[in-house]
Formats: sequence, C-alpha cells, structure tokens
Amino acid sequence: MPELRKDPIIGRWVIIATERAKRPDQLTNLTQEIPAEKPCPFCTGKETETPNEIYSIRPTHTPPNTPGWELRVVPSLTPFLRIEGELDRTGRGLYDLMNGVGAHEIVVETNQHLANICDLPEEQIKWVIACYIDRIVDLEKDKRFKYVLVFKNYGWSAGGGRVRHSRTQLIATPVNPKRVKEELVGARKYYDSHERCVFCDLVKQELHSKDRLILEIDGFIAVVPFASRFPFEVWILPKRHSCDFVRLDEEERKNLARILKQVLLKIKIGLNDPPYNYIIHSAPFRRQKVGYWKSIEEDYHWHIEITPRLTRVAGFEWGTGFYICPVPPESAAKFLREVEIDSEGG
Amino acid sequence: MPELRKDPIIGRWVIIATERAKRPDQLTNLTQEIPAEKPCPFCTGKETETPNEIYSIRPTHTPPNTPGWELRVVPSLTPFLRIEGELDRTGRGLYDLMNGVGAHEIVVETNQHLANICDLPEEQIKWVIACYIDRIVDLEKDKRFKYVLVFKNYGWSAGGGRVRHSRTQLIATPVNPKRVKEELVGARKYYDSHERCVFCDLVKQELHSKDRLILEIDGFIAVVPFASRFPFEVWILPKRHSCDFVRLDEEERKNLARILKQVLLKIKIGLNDPPYNYIIHSAPFRRQKVGYWKSIEEDYHWHIEITPRLTRVAGFEWGTGFYICPVPPESAAKFLREVEIDSEGG
Repeated sequence: MPELRKDPIIGRWVIIATERAKRPDQLTNLTQEIPAEKPCPFCTGKETETPNEIYSIRPTHTPPNTPGWELRVVPSLTPFLRIEGELDRTGRGLYDLMNGVGAHEIVVETNQHLANICDLPEEQIKWVIACYIDRIVDLEKDKRFKYVLVFKNYGWSAGGGRVRHSRTQLIATPVNPKRVKEELVGARKYYDSHERCVFCDLVKQELHSKDRLILEIDGFIAVVPFASRFPFEVWILPKRHSCDFVRLDEEERKNLARILKQVLLKIKIGLNDPPYNYIIHSAPFRRQKVGYWKSIEEDYHWHIEITPRLTRVAGFEWGTGFYICPVPPESAAKFLREVEIDSEGG
Repeated sequence: MPELRKDPIIGRWVIIATERAKRPDQLTNLTQEIPAEKPCPFCTGKETETPNEIYSIRPTHTPPNTPGWELRVVPSLTPFLRIEGELDRTGRGLYDLMNGVGAHEIVVETNQHLANICDLPEEQIKWVIACYIDRIVDLEKDKRFKYVLVFKNYGWSAGGGRVRHSRTQLIATPVNPKRVKEELVGARKYYDSHERCVFCDLVKQELHSKDRLILEIDGFIAVVPFASRFPFEVWILPKRHSCDFVRLDEEERKNLARILKQVLLKIKIGLNDPPYNYIIHSAPFRRQKVGYWKSIEEDYHWHIEITPRLTRVAGFEWGTGFYICPVPPESAAKFLREVEIDSEGG
C-alpha cells in the first residue's frame, strides 16, 4: 500500500509509492541531452573575464583579480537582480511590485577546473562555508535586503550552466522567499503548542529510530526526510539548536564541511554522479524588528536540503505542491548508508 | 530594471527579468532527449490492454470495453494511490501518515492516436470537459476523498509518458493539496478585507488594462498572470463567479472548450509545439463541513492554469518557492495575442 506522509514543518502531503519502489538504477527517466561545455571564465588566469572580485582567499602579496587565489567571489555575469537603486514599492490596482533590487554573486569554490564540490579537500570546503558566512554577514548590512539564498546547481538538469567549474550562487533579496515564510510559520505553530523546536524534535526522533539516518558526525546528522519529495533527498541538520547558519563556530564549520563532503560523495558514488541542488535554509535578516518573527530564535533551526535530480517531475507537482516520491525514504537512507567512501573521502 | 512582482492570491514573489527578456526562439535551454514511443494501449481495438472502463461515451448498442467509443475513462495501469482500503490515519512520533488511498483514472480523450488536445474538434473537447465533471461528481460520493486533481502532462519534459495518446489524469486524494489550501487561505484573506473575490477583481482589472489579456470569449478570459512563474504561463478564468468547476452549464462548457482549444493552439503554433501542463483549480469537496472553508462559496473562484515547459527550472526554485521568469507577462501576452489561428481553430 502506498503511504501519504505529511511534512511536520510545512504540512505538505507527499505520496510515498512503496509498492512501485524503485532501485536507483531504475530511476532512469531523466534523459537530458547535455550541451557542449563552454570556455571557463572561472579558472586561474581568467580573472579579467569576470567582474571585479568582491572577496577572495589569496596570499597577501597578490593583488585582487590576479592569479594566486584559492577561492573568489564575483558578481554574476548575468544577474537576476540589480544592486543599484531603490526598492520603490508600488501598487498597480490589485497588484504589488517593486524594483528588482538585490545582489547576485558567484562563489568560485576552487581555482581548479573541477565540477563537484565533493571532490575538494575538506579544508577547502570549510573555506567555502566560511565564505558563505562572510558574504551573508556583509550583505545583511544593506538595509534593503531581507534574505540571502545560498544555493548550488550541480549538473545540467539541476539548472547548472554550460560552464562546469564548481561554484555556489548567492542571491540577496528584498523579500522573503515563500518557502522560508512557510517554514517560519510552521515552526512557530509547532513551538506554540509544544514549546519545543520542531527540528530539534526531528533530530531526536531520527537519532532514536535510525530508519532514515545516513550519517552522524560530531554535531550534525544527515537524514532522508520522512515526507521526502524527491528520491534520495537528504537534509543535513545541526544537533545544536540555532536559527542562523552564520553563527557556526570554527569547529562546527569543520564538521559541516566533513558531513557535506561525505553525503555528496555517497550521492556521487552510489547514484552515478547525478545532478543535484543544495540550498541553505536559515533565518531571515532583521527579524528582531518584526513581531511576526519574534520567537524565531527559539523555534527555527537552520539546515541544508540536498535534492538529487533523478526523475522528471510530473507537471502537476508544480501546480499543486503535491509530490510523488518513488523511493521510500527508509530504503533511500539504507542505500546511502551502505555506500562506501574511502577514508580520504572519495 | 528587473521587477519583483507579487502574486495577489498566494503572495509569492517572482523576479520578472525585464532586461534579459527573451524572445520565444531564444528559450532553448530545455533540450530533453525524447525516448522512443511505446505501443499505444489507448487506441480503438486495444480495449483489453487497459483495466475495465469506468465511463465512456459510445453508441448504446456497443458493449463496454469494445470498439465504438468516442471517449473512455479507465483506471491507471500504474496507479499512485489504491482505491481499496481505509485511510487509517496514524502518528509515528512527530510524523503523521495515512494509507495511500485514492483513485487514479485516465481520461482517454479520443479514439484517434493524436497527442495534443487542441487538435480535437471543439465538440470533442466539450465532451472531455463534461467527462471531467461527471467523474468529479462521482468521486465526490466517496466520503474518503477531499479533492480531485485534474491535470494534463503533454510532452516528455512536462511529465508525459512514452505513449503519446491525448489524455488527462484524475487523482482523487484524501487530503487537500498544499497549493489548493494556499489559494483558499489567500482568497479568504482578500475577501476579509475587501468583501470581494480576488479573482473577480483580477478579471476586471485584466479586462480593463488589456496588457496581459490574450483572449476574451463569451464568459471567459485567458490572461498571462501578473506574477507569472514561467514564460508564457496562461490562466483561463470564468467571468461569472463560481468556486466550483462542476457547476458549468451547457453553454459555459461549450465556451470553455472553445477558449481552451484556442489558447492551446496559440501555444502550439506560436511556441513550436512545446510540452505543457494544465491543471484545473477548483474548490475542495465537503467544504460545508469545515469552518475553515466557510466563506469559500463567495471568496474562491475556479480557473485553469496552463504552463508551457520552455526552460529548465533552476534548482533553487524547488527549494524556495522563488521563481525567475525570463519573459515579461505583457510581452508574452502580446506575442500570444498576435499568433493567428484559422477560423477552424488550427
């Protein structure tokens, strides 16, 4: 019998197709033609092909926008939003709109032309995490912004481009994304009735049952969510309650780098290097000003959601928010648990 | 300057990329390999290859599951939900789940092996609409169900299968899909402050401004929504306020068939026969029992959403509910308005 499962945070129901459960090698209906690779503007020596760098990790004797860097952040060549200008919120009859003001930055994670972040050393991934934090903290100073989306599109069907150099996108927006609001509202509702954080409860239950647990590393767990939308979806959650990703200390950054690398390696090795996305879910800026978010420190819990792209999405899922997952989360977790990665991590 | 626009019903913000605005022939980044067609079990003469028919339009002297039919409804060969069994709602610690009880039916819209519903005569499309209504009314009698999703996946990247016979899927579910709830809540909020239906206001404003209007036909309009998520997204709305699709009278069914055919023909001709989805958004069942929906008769308004699949979706849109539309709705509407279809309708 298939199951209907409800996401405990935002209340979305998902069909878990237990009977038609598929093995990873049967999830083959995503057959996208991959266009030819384009010349890479993100490699060492190509610094003049991008806009001027905003941030870099490089030896002090090397000037900006020259070789020698280990990691660089540059404005997007094709930004979705513009950094200049006022918001100019306005109405047009029934409708609300504002200028598309925001920031769109690219974190170039390595000077090597390498596609998948999991192939970088742990230490380098730690720098990437530190860079996310530094950029978010800097962008928060701009009073026009409410949120920074930090996301990675790896591979063509995950929205990745024709340049395959490993990178992350940061989009600072003057509005809160819908999903973030839903999580905040859902988490607050749960807190209102239980006086506990729903994510903390989730971490405890997953550590206890172990059915959906993939990895447990100092301070972090990786699980397949109970009501997963996509086959082999994985969430990484910190055990320590914190609503804000930017508060990670040195030790936590190191452990996050380790679990992120290990999970992504398991996905790469076990699922034949599939396209994937990951997105950091963290509390919005300037929450102290808004009554709506007043309890957010207690009731929200930052985390990372990783979604491999193994199947086409039936169109109705877009229109209804109603998903069908062909692999039971427990089978997906067992599979990923058993994928072996060597001690060097790949 | 790009614009941030807000959907007036559910409050989702969308980036409308006015500067990078693309012409239809530039939207070429969706290059999916289409697998070979499979033998069709839905053609005349293949009636034994499907489960027994639930409904058909056929001459009275022809027995069920034999040739002679004009339209047939059969249970899905690979149902997502099972018709037998009790819901058995239960908790598992933090989590809620129930048995995957529901109905999954296929409306085979024609006995011809033809892929796109817009190539059927208007009269046949009217039968398809009548069939949707008859099936929804019948499924509502099953007290376990709360909603029927009526949706079409046309073409491979829209989730269509390897059999290209024109058909619609109906999924009756024991829960309300998330998007439906959001629309109901959004519409009620608007009604609470204005004592008017937000969709009626939308119809009026679109008829007045004409910027996003594609077609106006007795009783219906087709528009590109102000905060459209996808390029060339189209909504068909009835001018007459009604929360429930099944209440269409004879004349309205005829006019809906006409506008649906014309819009889909414009999409086919103007955009090079792209994959698309359409979904009927209508009020849930048994709404009189739930305080939550008490004003739904006044504040909700059924409609159809059509989304051509012209671009890949960047992964972060899944995780954030934050969309980027590369074609301004006004340009998309102008383009579709100007696509000529002959008086026979294609």
